[in-house]
Amino acid sequence: MTDRYAREALKTLAQDMLSKGGLAADKAEVVAELLVRTDELGVTTHGLSMVPYYLPELASGNMTRDGVHEVVSDRGATLVWDGNYLPGHWIMQQALEVCMDRARELGVVCLSIRRSHHIGCLSTLTRIAAAQGLICMISTSDPSGRWVAPFGGTDAVLTPNPWAVGYPAADHPVLIDTCASITTVSKVREHINSGTQFAHPWMLDAQGNATTDPTVVNQTPKGTILPVGGADHGHKGYAMALTVEMLTQALSGHGRSEDVTRWGGNVFLQIMDPAAFAGADPFVREVEALNAACRASRPAPGFDAVRIPGDRAARMLDRSRTEGIALPDEVWTRVRAAAETLGVALPSAL
Amino acid sequence: MTDRYAREALKTLAQDMLSKGGLAADKAEVVAELLVRTDELGVTTHGLSMVPYYLPELASGNMTRDGVHEVVSDRGATLVWDGNYLPGHWIMQQALEVCMDRARELGVVCLSIRRSHHIGCLSTLTRIAAAQGLICMISTSDPSGRWVAPFGGTDAVLTPNPWAVGYPAADHPVLIDTCASITTVSKVREHINSGTQFAHPWMLDAQGNATTDPTVVNQTPKGTILPVGGADHGHKGYAMALTVEMLTQALSGHGRSEDVTRWGGNVFLQIMDPAAFAGADPFVREVEALNAACRASRPAPGFDAVRIPGDRAARMLDRSRTEGIALPDEVWTRVRAAAETLGVALPSAL
Repeated sequence: MTDRYAREALKTLAQDMLSKGGLAADKAEVVAELLVRTDELGVTTHGLSMVPYYLPELASGNMTRDGVHEVVSDRGATLVWDGNYLPGHWIMQQALEVCMDRARELGVVCLSIRRSHHIGCLSTLTRIAAAQGLICMISTSDPSGRWVAPFGGTDAVLTPNPWAVGYPAADHPVLIDTCASITTVSKVREHINSGTQFAHPWMLDAQGNATTDPTVVNQTPKGTILPVGGADHGHKGYAMALTVEMLTQALSGHGRSEDVTRWGGNVFLQIMDPAAFAGADPFVREVEALNAACRASRPAPGFDAVRIPGDRAARMLDRSRTEGIALPDEVWTRVRAAAETLGVALPSAL
Repeated sequence: MTDRYAREALKTLAQDMLSKGGLAADKAEVVAELLVRTDELGVTTHGLSMVPYYLPELASGNMTRDGVHEVVSDRGATLVWDGNYLPGHWIMQQALEVCMDRARELGVVCLSIRRSHHIGCLSTLTRIAAAQGLICMISTSDPSGRWVAPFGGTDAVLTPNPWAVGYPAADHPVLIDTCASITTVSKVREHINSGTQFAHPWMLDAQGNATTDPTVVNQTPKGTILPVGGADHGHKGYAMALTVEMLTQALSGHGRSEDVTRWGGNVFLQIMDPAAFAGADPFVREVEALNAACRASRPAPGFDAVRIPGDRAARMLDRSRTEGIALPDEVWTRVRAAAETLGVALPSAL
């Protein structure tokens, strides 16, 4: 079952929980706002459901509770920040503000960030810039993470390496949000918890054989998640993974050379202003022409229609705004348990 | 069989053929140089073997024989050029010169180009910047091309949409050169010509069923090439394809809204200077740490070792420089036929 909740009630709940968990007030406000926006888009795996994961990180000090990021370098159109393991949502809100302003002036801005904490749902972030007419590209990696083997190998080296692109269109932004591996660590854990196999061979066992079995990551020696393209053409996902790690780790000057063991989010953010290229109107005209051609493509067996990334988020957002924000039972159960432990009052469903 | 030829002899041959074909002298020199560099890297599908394809394009006027590109907009860090269907190699050489200079000053430069002709092997181009310590990203599409259906659809809308990234490492640059579809139009034609099936279902028939049959693209209604990820997780390749078309068509203000029928190359070029981020040395240090970890990953069944993209090109280049440039017989046969028609003298093999 899925109940719906008022936006302000959910934001207050998240904010109170994070504050009680030790996060500075200004940061708790920003993180709560972005988590609620994520639930509004229907990405309930990355919304309020993250709070129970952030609380122990705040308690242990793995997520820094207060302070600011360090500006490592600033050349105007290019920047490097050290996030000092502050909440990624807060870092990214600062990053978007700085880079959106500069992109309007310079046309393009690139920021590589080391040592952020978890930045949450990438589409929530790219949407902020895309809704204001800008192109926003974000990729992220964790230099301590090893889940994906390089193509042709069996030992895990890479993270799934998510990447996202948001850009303006006529009605609502296009929101691409994907990664360099076929599936994610969260999905692997879900399948392990539910005792189910993947429908396709998306994993690799420690001997290098493709398999549908998610538990290979818990075995010794450890199996891995296959890169996009799988055993068939995984050199394509490997190429994406190397690119993401280069942008997030090599450009930020912090990565696997340091044998990092603390979980951290390295981030590459690029914002461009279509007005600084051929113009905002031609940009949207071409995006819409392509989107229309894609939507007009006759559906393949098993599909109702061709979708443009961001279509579902736009529908979910409309519904969230009129009917309240839907949270699945399993999310609410976890959030409620954490709230009760902290002594934070829970809102009622609508 | 594969004979080897002297570099200067091949360059003179290509230059003479292109000049006799009508291309202005300065452009013939640049195109010939880049084609030879491509053969030097071992990418003989995109080197001198292209000349017999370019000659009819010059004859018909589809490839412009002389003139310059138009600067549509120039904001310093962002530019738009109209290539006027000039040879893509020449346009890209101009583009690299301008953008490498500016990247050293500004840290990042982005150029979107409309209406170039064929730009050849992307790694040949990215390598120029990467060998000088810069990060070079190139993607390209043809707004008149329809070979790949959007994921979930059956009608072709997209081109294979190649993308490449070159960046510095310790010994030789990393050269990623891939595309958003599982295979390319050239490979499909090769399989049709040789009467062979693909080893895996990389195609989609007009009814939307995955198939190994390359001839579906010649049937009516027409089949398509599957995006990266295939029938299984092709939404990932579709995401890449949308991104490439956005960067090359929407940003350049020329695309599918115009119902383009003339073959053309739209291009997005981005150059970044690691020195404008965390520094050139930390950049290479992290690239090398990642590369070393990948190479140390135990090979999977069927693989000798994990490779870093660019390893093979570096080996081929070394060998080309010491032993001459290898051209496979089938390439030489086509080049010789075209040279004889033009009355251009052929060099002997080494």
